[in-house]
Parts: sequence; structure tokens; C-alpha cells
Amino acid sequence: MTTQFGPSYVRAIAPYVAGKPISEVAREFGLDEARIVKLASNENPLGVPESAQRAIAQAASELGRYPDSNAFELKAALAARYDVPPEWITLGNGSNDILEMAAHAFVERGQSIVYSQYSFAVYALATQGLGARHLVTPAVRYGHDLDAMLAAVADDTRLIFVANPNNPTGTFIDGATLEAFIARVPRHIAVVLDEAYTEYLAADKRYDSIAWARRYPNLLVSRTFSKAYGLAGLRIGFAIAQPELTDLLNRLRQPFNVNTLAQAAAIAALGDTDFLEKSAALNAEGYCTLTAAFERMGLEYVPSDGNFVLVRVGADDQAGDRVNLALLKQGVIVRPVGGYGLPQWLRVTIGLPGENAAFLAALERALA
Amino acid sequence: MTTQFGPSYVRAIAPYVAGKPISEVAREFGLDEARIVKLASNENPLGVPESAQRAIAQAASELGRYPDSNAFELKAALAARYDVPPEWITLGNGSNDILEMAAHAFVERGQSIVYSQYSFAVYALATQGLGARHLVTPAVRYGHDLDAMLAAVADDTRLIFVANPNNPTGTFIDGATLEAFIARVPRHIAVVLDEAYTEYLAADKRYDSIAWARRYPNLLVSRTFSKAYGLAGLRIGFAIAQPELTDLLNRLRQPFNVNTLAQAAAIAALGDTDFLEKSAALNAEGYCTLTAAFERMGLEYVPSDGNFVLVRVGADDQAGDRVNLALLKQGVIVRPVGGYGLPQWLRVTIGLPGENAAFLAALERALA
Repeated sequence: MTTQFGPSYVRAIAPYVAGKPISEVAREFGLDEARIVKLASNENPLGVPESAQRAIAQAASELGRYPDSNAFELKAALAARYDVPPEWITLGNGSNDILEMAAHAFVERGQSIVYSQYSFAVYALATQGLGARHLVTPAVRYGHDLDAMLAAVADDTRLIFVANPNNPTGTFIDGATLEAFIARVPRHIAVVLDEAYTEYLAADKRYDSIAWARRYPNLLVSRTFSKAYGLAGLRIGFAIAQPELTDLLNRLRQPFNVNTLAQAAAIAALGDTDFLEKSAALNAEGYCTLTAAFERMGLEYVPSDGNFVLVRVGADDQAGDRVNLALLKQGVIVRPVGGYGLPQWLRVTIGLPGENAAFLAALERALA
Repeated sequence: MTTQFGPSYVRAIAPYVAGKPISEVAREFGLDEARIVKLASNENPLGVPESAQRAIAQAASELGRYPDSNAFELKAALAARYDVPPEWITLGNGSNDILEMAAHAFVERGQSIVYSQYSFAVYALATQGLGARHLVTPAVRYGHDLDAMLAAVADDTRLIFVANPNNPTGTFIDGATLEAFIARVPRHIAVVLDEAYTEYLAADKRYDSIAWARRYPNLLVSRTFSKAYGLAGLRIGFAIAQPELTDLLNRLRQPFNVNTLAQAAAIAALGDTDFLEKSAALNAEGYCTLTAAFERMGLEYVPSDGNFVLVRVGADDQAGDRVNLALLKQGVIVRPVGGYGLPQWLRVTIGLPGENAAFLAALERALA
């Protein structure tokens, strides 16, 4: 008899495939690390803000101590910024941790979770990880079909994941439409609104989801410091929701889930509006560069409000992997999205001007 | 109708109560942070090793990038140190993350987990968090009763947690006895051997649990960098097990669960044998100081092989809280263990000589 450990739903999970780190690509393809361009993981090309680096240096001598489990100072800073009580805030080891906590806090095995086709892979992983049912609605123009998501709600649905802007497609739902959707969700179903890319929104697209958290006790807004704030390597995200949802998350939260340096760096980054503005401006400029080139090259792309663009690199289902390999050989790392059911596409993060140019040159060669 | 979110087993969880951070005690009791002595969280009183601080400073500019999800370099270092393939290693956001992953990877709702009375609080939390059944065996002399744990195994048992040395009691099971126990556990039940304090063991008590991991495919050895290695604030632990268990853990592992600085610092600390030896020697000396004082004061204590001692501070069930408060008012933070069912006891971490002396002086005043 062969022993099989673990629940069948855990054994069925295909682990998340992360973007290849620069060091790994250098090893695999015999390339010089310094010459590799990585546009694979929607990281901020400006890197970590100097303000955060100073905060890290100051806190580095305290690392023999456990982190503050309640993150007093960071919660105070977030509470002041978003005008909510500190008790409405949950911190996560990246917003990935928030999404996982939400699934486990609101849903039990056999109940269902609603999310859209072409939305963030962690929604599916979190659903599988607890043996819940997936109710996946077809996308419309690569974005969420909110009506279909409402229609998909079943008696046993306990959670809906909505990403805005969405990753990996970059699609955006305007604030009025999104709030109307949230208002129509039955009150016993939690809505996790994943706003990992919200800081990149143009001024005329912004909306106040924190005000919705005050209005809808079943709404949890998830944010991250990994994108525009430039702290991906430190792992820190947060959620804002009324106490009923927040208290449940905190029952499952690992008490020391957010490390000391992440807490210190996040406080610094939160106050560094210059860095945030510079990041958004650089991103807007890079978006124009990339999409103008795609149009010139006759490549279809999905209009994006994030810090990345989904571009169709061929009409056959090997196109994404083939072009990705050709880019890797030239030292350019982007993200194939075949695992999302988008085998003809690649997702490219908007980089520094030189990185964008290097990617575009490599792409032209790869397609030639 | 009141809406209740979440599974009943999640709503029933009483969140983990962390040791109070120094800043919080200073706020609460109006004390000067610099004068507070914290012996509450089994942290290394030497703090973070300088070797790790240098590694952190070097890696701090890379934090705009996500961590290496596969932790290539750290796994290579651990694989070399423990003579196992890198594929046998799982990294966690602290060993707390390892323990949680193990519970979710090996057990489903309704199945049972065996652990001992007076063992680490996270075993109970992880069990509750997935709606599993607790099979808790009574302690013998404040330590694990391995025969009772075997006898408690039910048809639906899928996991046994064993801590050696145990926290919060400090009790120790010798290697031969422990291996005999593991050999008797049915092969379809995973054993998580939590060795968070193993680096503090005296030379004559050490045993080779990694060799057992080679022998028993159902054994997972869990270790941490939070104690003797001095990296509690960075959050990093690891597990060693054969691929069958390791692969399951990695299906549930959040892909970027271990931050970049933790990976860099752990590599440095792993090679810093001087720091580890100094930490163990300081601990052994502090243990003698504390236990000699307890004997002089006529206080019962549990002989400990960790970096902490459990001491009985009174014969009534208010004693722990009462003496704890008296210590806090003097700026000394230890850990009350009423939540563990040990209301007459306090757990005190072994500190620097000056910290131990300050604690003992405060304790004498508190008991006077």
C-alpha cells in the first residue's frame, strides 16, 4: 500500500510559478546578471525608496527581537492616512497573506468562492488550499464581468475576489460601477477588493474605496507595499475593513507575520509622497512608450491601468512560450501567462526607459 | 438577522497573545524604554549577529525586487550544512509558518492532530484554524508523555506535533527515546518535530534528527533562526523532510513567504559558528544563575534545556498574573503562562547577566 499524505485537494494543487529571479536566469542561460532586464514581476523599477532604506538601517540592530505583533506605529500611520481606527487594519506578509487569510477566515471546505477568469492566480490557489469550490466567471474584454459574478453567487458562496486594476490583464472598473456592484452583493458574503495597483491610477480614475469599507461591513480592501511603494522584497501588505471581518482575519493571522524591517520601511514609504508620484509618472510615461511600440509593431495589447501591459505576441498557442524563450536568451525576463489560459500573450512590467527600450529591441528580434 | 461571517471553528479561536513589546510596556506603565528588561519572548539577548547585519546592509538596495521564491542560495547553504538535497527543504516566515503549513498540508477538517498539554500554543491554533480535532495528552512532569501520545492516535489522526526541547516548559526527551517513538508512529501519520531550541542543547544531549528524516518518510524536522541565531525580527524558519511531505508543504506555501533580508541574514548566521557558541555558552551560564537564585528563594522551577525557565511564583491561581504585574511595574517583562493552564508559573527568558540580575532583584521585591 502506498501511503498518501494530505487532503486530496492539497495534493491536487499545482504550485504557483514565480517570475524567475535574475540570478536563476543568469545561471540557466549563462548570462551576466548585470546585463539582465527583469520586467516579470510588476516590481517598481525605481527600487526601494531611500527613505525606506534609511528606516531599515536604523532598525537593523533590533532584529534579535520579535516584531511588534500589533504593529502599533505602522497601524497608527495607516489609520491617520486613511482615517480609520487602527482596529480596522490587518497587516499581511505581502497582500498574498491577506488574500489567504481572507479565504481561510470566511470560507470553509465545500463552500464556494467567486472570482473572474484571468484574475490573480492566488485566488485560485487560496480556494484550492482550503478545499473550497471555485465559481469562475468568464472575462469580458479580459476584465471582470461583474454581472456574471453576481449571477454566479450560490447559496454556499462566502467570498468574492475582485481585483481593480486586475492582474495580469490591467483592466479597470470605474468607481461608480464597482460600488454599485458591492452594494448588490448579499451582506453575508465577504468581498475582497484587491487594489495592489491602485497607486498607479490616473487622477481622474481614482475612487475612495476606504469610504466604501465604512459603508459596507462585508467589504475588505486589500493593498500592498510591493508595487508603487517599492518594498516587494520585504513583504508587507494590509487590509482595511470593519471589525467583524478584521477580527476574523486576526484570529488566523500568524502573530509575527510582518517582520520588523517591513514595518519600519512601510512607515517611511507611506510618508514618501515624492517617491510615489515619481513612480506613477515614470509608469505613465513607460506605458506610452510600450503601447506606442506595440501599435507600431502591430501587436494587440490590453489597455492597462497597472504597471504592466499584456501583449499578444502570436496567433498560435505556443507563441507566449516561444517568444518568452527568445527573450530569455537575450537576457530579458517577462512573464508568460499560459498558466492563466493566455498562451498567446506575455505580461511585461513597465520598467525604466532603458529597460523598456531593451525589451522592445529584444521583442523585435524575437518576433523577426 | 445578524450576519455571522466565517466558519464556526474560526470564530471560536482566541487569538495568540504575543509577549508585550518594550514600546507598549513603556506606554502602558509610563516607563523609560531604555530601562526596560524584556525576558518574555525567548529572544537571543545578544541580539542579531554582526555578520547578519552586514548581509542585511548589502542586500538592502535589492528590496524593490520580490524575494527569490525558491531561496536558491539559502537552500544550498542549508543543504550543505545538513547533507540533504535542497528539495528536502521548506522555508517558512518563521517556524510558525512551517507549523501552520504542516497542519494545512497534512490534515483536513474533522481529522485529528495529537499534541501534548503544555506544548507550544501554535499547535492548538493551527488545529483550530482548520477545524481539526484536538487530541491533547496530559503532560508528565510538564513534558510530553510519548506513550500517551501514541495511545491517543485515532483512525483519523494525520499529524503529531512534538517539541524538543518543549516550550514553554523547557522539558527534553533524549534522542534514543524520541527515535523509538517516531519509529512506532504509523507511517501514514506525519510527525512534526519542532526543534526551535535545539541549538541550546548541551553537547551530551544532542542527537541527529536529520538522520531520522532520511529514515522516516513521515518525519518533518522544523527549525528556526529566531532563537539562537538571533533573527527573530526577520522571520525565518525551515523544515527538512523527504520530498513527499516537502512537496505538500510547498503547494500551500505562499510563494514569497520569506523576505529577501531574512534569506541573506540566515546565510550569514548559519556560517557564524562563533556567535552560536557564544549564545549557547551565555545561555548555560545564565541558566545556572537563575536556577541557583530560584533554589535560594525556595521557588520551584522546571529543569530546562531551552533559553528560558518556567518558575512557580505562588501557590494560588492568581500568582502568575499578580507577580507579572508587579514585575511590569518595575520594567521587567516576562511571560505569564495562564493561557497554557499554568497560572501559578511565569516563563522567563535567560538574558544577559545584567538582565538576569535585574529580573531576580525585581522578582524578590515582587514576592516580598
